Amino acid sequence: MPDVIPDNSVGIVTPQVIQFDDPLTLACGRTLDQYQLVIETYGELNADASNAILICHALSGHHHAAGYHSMEDKKPGWWDNHIGPGKPFDTNRFFVVCLNNLGGCHGSTGPTSINPQTGQPWGPDFPALRVRDWVESQVRLSDRLGIQQWAAIVGGSLGGMQVMRWSLEHPHRLRHAIIIASAMKLSAQNIAFNEIARNAIKSDPDFLDGHYLEHQALPRNGLGLARMIGHITYLSDEIMGDKFGRELRSGSFQRGQDTPIEFQVESYLHYQGDVFASAFDANTYLLMTKALDYFDLAREYNHDQVEAFRHAQCDFLVVSFSSDWRFAPERSREIVEALIAANKNVSYAAIQSNLGHDAFLLPNERYEQVLSAYLTRLDNEVAAP
Amino acid sequence: MPDVIPDNSVGIVTPQVIQFDDPLTLACGRTLDQYQLVIETYGELNADASNAILICHALSGHHHAAGYHSMEDKKPGWWDNHIGPGKPFDTNRFFVVCLNNLGGCHGSTGPTSINPQTGQPWGPDFPALRVRDWVESQVRLSDRLGIQQWAAIVGGSLGGMQVMRWSLEHPHRLRHAIIIASAMKLSAQNIAFNEIARNAIKSDPDFLDGHYLEHQALPRNGLGLARMIGHITYLSDEIMGDKFGRELRSGSFQRGQDTPIEFQVESYLHYQGDVFASAFDANTYLLMTKALDYFDLAREYNHDQVEAFRHAQCDFLVVSFSSDWRFAPERSREIVEALIAANKNVSYAAIQSNLGHDAFLLPNERYEQVLSAYLTRLDNEVAAP
Repeated sequence: MPDVIPDNSVGIVTPQVIQFDDPLTLACGRTLDQYQLVIETYGELNADASNAILICHALSGHHHAAGYHSMEDKKPGWWDNHIGPGKPFDTNRFFVVCLNNLGGCHGSTGPTSINPQTGQPWGPDFPALRVRDWVESQVRLSDRLGIQQWAAIVGGSLGGMQVMRWSLEHPHRLRHAIIIASAMKLSAQNIAFNEIARNAIKSDPDFLDGHYLEHQALPRNGLGLARMIGHITYLSDEIMGDKFGRELRSGSFQRGQDTPIEFQVESYLHYQGDVFASAFDANTYLLMTKALDYFDLAREYNHDQVEAFRHAQCDFLVVSFSSDWRFAPERSREIVEALIAANKNVSYAAIQSNLGHDAFLLPNERYEQVLSAYLTRLDNEVAAP
Repeated sequence: MPDVIPDNSVGIVTPQVIQFDDPLTLACGRTLDQYQLVIETYGELNADASNAILICHALSGHHHAAGYHSMEDKKPGWWDNHIGPGKPFDTNRFFVVCLNNLGGCHGSTGPTSINPQTGQPWGPDFPALRVRDWVESQVRLSDRLGIQQWAAIVGGSLGGMQVMRWSLEHPHRLRHAIIIASAMKLSAQNIAFNEIARNAIKSDPDFLDGHYLEHQALPRNGLGLARMIGHITYLSDEIMGDKFGRELRSGSFQRGQDTPIEFQVESYLHYQGDVFASAFDANTYLLMTKALDYFDLAREYNHDQVEAFRHAQCDFLVVSFSSDWRFAPERSREIVEALIAANKNVSYAAIQSNLGHDAFLLPNERYEQVLSAYLTRLDNEVAAP
């Protein structure tokens, strides 16, 4: 909670809910007749709407990327270190938009919303979504905001997959694609970790086949476990060692029977799991991990990633982090290689970090310098707001 | 199931149960008044009992390391590729002993055994065990077998921790220590994976605070989840990719709603989890992972690993596998460095393998050559049986 809002903060921000009444047919074949997206915007759109940047969130993200909702907020938005006056996504120059994706649980239509046909929460009956569905809903959001072409679309992890899909399916609607700690498709290991997380949720007796909300239940244990699994894999072995080592919670080895939680790292994981289980919806978690697993950039392009990227018209920045083993630098290099083979304009930054996959969310001077430097390239394309 | 027992197999083997009636005081301060250990032996002990090799098992291992229990067995023992006539642990020359550790669930006294004081299964009231307790019980087994000094004690992973503990606490009772894919202590990441696995078991409503056996229940889901987590982390990303890629179970992408299990890797993990949940005891899993987490070679040696190893008198062979990220080669090199600094005789083999931690259990020509070569050194120490 800031006593004073810092000078380089976007300050107090207010989310907006945007209603869409034109039916959206999804990749699964089902149609959402109407839906809402909750968004936040930072900075001002310029006269020719050429300075807009879209931020796509990752698995457990949402629309609140920067600033504070009130002076009582303990923490700013999740990418506050990147978004604000003088920051890489400089709100003195750019109009930055972030949304909660369809299927989310932070205000956009999703499994916790009321299904108008039943008057009950959608729950497990909410349609399965693919990354392309998110992109289509974001296209409609762009239309609504009067943004014909984004200066840049940016995302890390699952967000980076949305950026890549945009570049193929709507090549004229973005000038720059910034793809951070992402992959053209998940590895079997990644799918396996997601499946275990889903299984933990579904095995919780309070999951009730996904109908927990109707029964005032919450699969807290399962969702907590899912988060713990995710959390370990988003950190590097090194940073876990640095943060916790093998420190015992009591500060000393307990001779005798096991107490339930002994190592600091166990205590930390339980805390993370509990916090997440209170804040996130289990059906949304299932839906989002499935979208992540299914994403395969080139599935509809003869499984040829170079052929896929030939459709893109924008320039690309690809960023990876050295200790990220869930979306390893090798996956980013594969993107870069495919882009080069497709004859696209691509910059690649391999950032040194010991923070694992989470590095894309955390402060890192070099990372911020890379983003800032790349974004100054946009200066001569963009008029002042 | 072999039609004919192969020439280089130890053949049909029969486990033996050995009863101990001298109370064993454990590291936790509690005492087991009596207990049983189930063992298998392969080959013959020579006249001066100088050709005996002890195999220490890892987390989910047991005494059945080689050969077949009957002609109906589908698979031989878990280390059959290493143990037999002409194999690295050559049963023409060595007398090989493998036991199920105390606390196990394959015939040695453990949580599934009857607590004589209650007439009920021990369940969660079975005493907490440390690696040193296993070593003490193995010392008593050695006495019973008339083996004053083992030619070698061998183990992978948690088994390697037992080998190291033997070398410090009973330095005159082994001539060679073979430590495979192990570590002087677990990393925070390793502890975290174990804690999640334990949490999955404890969260299963059929766990009943560990008293499931008395209620004819089994925490199948939890134990299955625990195994899935372990299984992913014992494999390398590469081998999972080679084995499963992103193959869909049905062979093609299913447009439409999610079916429960779609990718081959998901199906495989569920199968592994189910098989394990039928064959292993949940309380034993909790107990063994806690022993693994607590192991810290130098805790009682001023946290000085070199000082600890100065107590050893045997020679050492340390083996690691390149793609093992759970017990990484770096952990083995730390053992080697500490042994060198303690002025011990140590050989180190860094084996190339894409099989992850599981490589220590699987066929690998170079690995077998290294073990064979090392064990020929013992020839001039050992008379024929």
